Amino acid sequence: MYILVSNVGSTSLKFKLFEMPQERLLCESKIERVGSDDAIYYYKNMESGLEERKNDCSIPCYSDGIRMFLSSLTEGEGAVPEEARKIEAVGFKTVLAKGFYGVHELTEQVLEAMREYLFVAPAHNAPYLEAIGQFKQVLPGAKMVGVFETAFHKTIPLERRIYSLPYEWYEKYGIMRMGYHGSSHSYIAKQVKERRIISCHLGGSCSLCAIKDGQSVDTSFGFSLQTGIPHANRAGDFDPYIIPFLKNEGLTEEEILQAVAKNGGLLGVSGVSNDLRKVQEAAENGNKRAELAIDMLAVSIIRYIGSFYAELGGLDALVFTGGIGENSNLLREKICLPLAHMGVVLDREANKMCRGHGMISATDSPVKILVVAANEEIGVARQTYDCVLGQ
Amino acid sequence: MYILVSNVGSTSLKFKLFEMPQERLLCESKIERVGSDDAIYYYKNMESGLEERKNDCSIPCYSDGIRMFLSSLTEGEGAVPEEARKIEAVGFKTVLAKGFYGVHELTEQVLEAMREYLFVAPAHNAPYLEAIGQFKQVLPGAKMVGVFETAFHKTIPLERRIYSLPYEWYEKYGIMRMGYHGSSHSYIAKQVKERRIISCHLGGSCSLCAIKDGQSVDTSFGFSLQTGIPHANRAGDFDPYIIPFLKNEGLTEEEILQAVAKNGGLLGVSGVSNDLRKVQEAAENGNKRAELAIDMLAVSIIRYIGSFYAELGGLDALVFTGGIGENSNLLREKICLPLAHMGVVLDREANKMCRGHGMISATDSPVKILVVAANEEIGVARQTYDCVLGQ
Repeated sequence: MYILVSNVGSTSLKFKLFEMPQERLLCESKIERVGSDDAIYYYKNMESGLEERKNDCSIPCYSDGIRMFLSSLTEGEGAVPEEARKIEAVGFKTVLAKGFYGVHELTEQVLEAMREYLFVAPAHNAPYLEAIGQFKQVLPGAKMVGVFETAFHKTIPLERRIYSLPYEWYEKYGIMRMGYHGSSHSYIAKQVKERRIISCHLGGSCSLCAIKDGQSVDTSFGFSLQTGIPHANRAGDFDPYIIPFLKNEGLTEEEILQAVAKNGGLLGVSGVSNDLRKVQEAAENGNKRAELAIDMLAVSIIRYIGSFYAELGGLDALVFTGGIGENSNLLREKICLPLAHMGVVLDREANKMCRGHGMISATDSPVKILVVAANEEIGVARQTYDCVLGQ
Repeated sequence: MYILVSNVGSTSLKFKLFEMPQERLLCESKIERVGSDDAIYYYKNMESGLEERKNDCSIPCYSDGIRMFLSSLTEGEGAVPEEARKIEAVGFKTVLAKGFYGVHELTEQVLEAMREYLFVAPAHNAPYLEAIGQFKQVLPGAKMVGVFETAFHKTIPLERRIYSLPYEWYEKYGIMRMGYHGSSHSYIAKQVKERRIISCHLGGSCSLCAIKDGQSVDTSFGFSLQTGIPHANRAGDFDPYIIPFLKNEGLTEEEILQAVAKNGGLLGVSGVSNDLRKVQEAAENGNKRAELAIDMLAVSIIRYIGSFYAELGGLDALVFTGGIGENSNLLREKICLPLAHMGVVLDREANKMCRGHGMISATDSPVKILVVAANEEIGVARQTYDCVLGQ
C-alpha cells in the first residue's frame, strides 16, 4: 500500500511517499519559505537518487507548493507515476482538534473540530486545513488521515494532565495539558529500548516527554503550543497574569499575544536570532543577552528533566532529537554536565563529535545519553497504515 | 528595642511584639474573618499567659482590627503599656512593590511602588496599604519597615528568573519570576543546617524554594501569586492561552480571572472545599474529584521537587512547613513515597505521628525529611531590627 505523509509547518511543507508495511521510502520533498518569492524547493527520488533543487521559487501559498510536488511526483524526471496513482491514503501530522486526540479519518466533523481549536494552534491548524482541502481535491480517491500530535499523550494520567482551574473548564471546554510532538516522541519510544526515557525534542519547537514502558506519562507542552520549554521565537511557560498586567500598562491583548508568539523564546531573550547557531556565535563574541538566552533555555530543560526524573522513579535513557537536539553539542553539554548526581554522565569528547545520531554517555554512566535523528514521518505512516486497515 | 510585627492576610491580621535582639516575644494577637460580623479575636500576653478570646466580633475593616489590638496592648488586662509606648518600629510582611524587592522603610515612594503592583497582588497589597496607613497614624513615632516577601529570592540567578518573553518587558516593566514566601523560606534556611534544602511551604498559599548555602536559588512562585503549586482556592501554573481561548468561548476576562483566583486550586478541582482536611474526608468517602485534587496537588509538588533536585546537584534536606506541611501526613506520604530513588526515604510511622515539628525520614535515608513549624514573624522582626540599625 502506498501512503503519502504530509508534514505542514507554519512556512514549510514536507512530503514522504512510503510503501507500507515495508516502510520503503520512495521519494521525499521539502519546501521552505512557503508564502514568499524566494521559496526553496527540493525533491528526491530515493531509488534513482535523482534530485531536484530550486531556489528563489515563487510559492505564494500551500496549494502552489502542493501542486509543484505533485508535478514532480507524476511527471518529472524523478517521478513515480505508477505508485502515485495507487496512493491509498495521505497521513497528516495534524496538531489539535477539539475532542479528537488520536488517529482519525479527516471527515468534515474532524475538520470542524480543528477549526474550533484554530485559536489554540493558529500557526498549525490553519495551514493544515488548507493543505488537507487541497489534497481532497487532487487525490479524491485517497483516504485522508490525521495523526494528531496529541495522540501519543493520551496515556498521561489525569492528575498530571488537569490544571488547578475550575473543573467545569475541563468538562465543558476540554481544557487540560494536551501535549504535542507525539509523532517525534512516539518514534523515540519505539527506537529506544530502555524502560524509563526522557525524550528531548529540541528544534524550532521544543518539548520534553517522559516515557515509561513505551508510553507517554508526562510532557512539557500544555493546552496550547506556547508552553513548556522556550521555543525558537515563541515563549514557553509564563505567568498568565502578565497579560492583564501589561494591558493595564497600556499594551493591547493582540500586541501582547503577537509578541509572545513571534518575539519570545530564544529570539526574544537574546535579541539576536531565533536560530541557536547565531545566538551561540553572538554569545562567543561576548553578547551577554545571547549568553543569557542559551543559559535560560538550558535551565528550562534541566527543570523538566528533573520533574520527569522524579515522576519516573529513575531514569535509563536521556534522548536528544530534533534540529537542535541532534546538532548542538553546546546545549547538550550545558544540560548534561549538572546532572551527574542523577546518573547522567556525559562523554564530553563523544558529545563534541556527535551529529545526528550516536551514544554520548560515558561508558560507566548509569543513564544512557543518546542522540537520535528525528523521524516523525515514519510514525505518521505507520499509524495511517493501521487506520486504513481499520485498526 | 521593641518591634511590632504585622502580618496582614486577605481576611486576617496577626501581630507579634518582640524585644530585639533577644527575640523575646511579649504578646501576640490573631484576628480572623476581618470584614465580617463574626470575626474571631485572640490576644495573649506571653509572660502572664493571660488570654483574651472573642467570637462573633464585628470587625468591618482593618482599622477596627488594629484599634482592637492596640487597645489590648495598652489598656487590657494583658496589656504591656510601657513597652508599647517604646515601639521603635513596625515590621510588615509586605508582598510586592515595583523596584523594591528587599527590606525597605515604607516611605511614600515605596508605598506608591506597592500601589503600582496592586494589580499583581490585589489580595495582598490592598490590605497592607490600608494597615500601614493606619499604623502611621496611631504610631507616628515608629519607623514603618516593609520586609518584602521577594527579598529572600534576590539571590536567584537571572537565567532562572527571566521568562522567555520579549526582553524589553523585563527591562521596562520588571517582569520576571519574583518569588514570595520569603520570610518563611528564609526562616527554614536559618533553622535547617543542611547545605542543599528544598523547603515546601504548604498552606493557604503554597510554594517551594531551593536553598543552597543558606540562599534562595529557585522558587515555584512566578511574577504574580497565582503561579507555581496549586493553592487553597487560587490556581497554580497554567497556560496563559487559556484566557484568550475562554474569552473566545464567551467568558469575560473578569469572570476568568475571578474564577482563577477564587475557584481554582484545591477547591476548583475537588469541588468540595479549599480546606485539605475536608477534601481528604470526601476522598475517603469515595469522592473521585476530591481524590483527583489531592493527587494533582501531590504531582505538582513532586514536579517542583524534581526540578530543584536537578538544579541543586543533589539534596540534603526536604522540609515541610506551613499549615498543610506541618499537619497533613497524607500529603507528605504521597509526596515522599515516590522519591526513594532520589534518596528521600520516609519513615511512615514517624510521619503518621508527626504534627508541627519533627524528623520523619528513615534512619538510613540519605536525605533528611523534616517538619518545621513556620515562624515568619521572627524573620520579619530580625530584618526590621537590622533595618532600624541601618544595616
